[in-house]
Amino acid sequence: MFLAKIYVTYKPSILDPKGETVKDALQRMEYTGIEDVVMGKYFEIKLSSSDATSAAKEVESFSEKLLINVNMEVFRYEIEAITE
Amino acid sequence: MFLAKIYVTYKPSILDPKGETVKDALQRMEYTGIEDVVMGKYFEIKLSSSDATSAAKEVESFSEKLLINVNMEVFRYEIEAITE
Repeated sequence: MFLAKIYVTYKPSILDPKGETVKDALQRMEYTGIEDVVMGKYFEIKLSSSDATSAAKEVESFSEKLLINVNMEVFRYEIEAITE
Repeated sequence: MFLAKIYVTYKPSILDPKGETVKDALQRMEYTGIEDVVMGKYFEIKLSSSDATSAAKEVESFSEKLLINVNMEVFRYEIEAITE
């Protein structure tokens, strides 16, 4: 069994309105040292793949097909073997 | 300058409807080996803190006050020093 951790963020050229809103809110609170905020999505997906290579292939395939908007977003991922 | 990566997920006892929806969609596509899907939020926040300890304190403070719903969600984070 494998656990994939997938991180989805906007491309740098795309405006991130949620991140900007969080940044403004933090700066209005007592947090003065906030330089930049990016807000994205995070997935933890358990796969019953036979090996890490096929797990990585599945993750790349379904991330592009379902999890992200390829025009606006990018993703990166990590895969680790788990026991249960 | 420090970069905090913050991961927010529902507590295990809380229903994760978005994760369930993604899981169902993946299983209806050709991905048969999907065992479980958790969907959460992901933040990358740049802080101009003087050291990693004060950056960690800030992150813990504003995560609980603004980023998460402490009744339903948990967070974990990593902090790394960055140059720009």
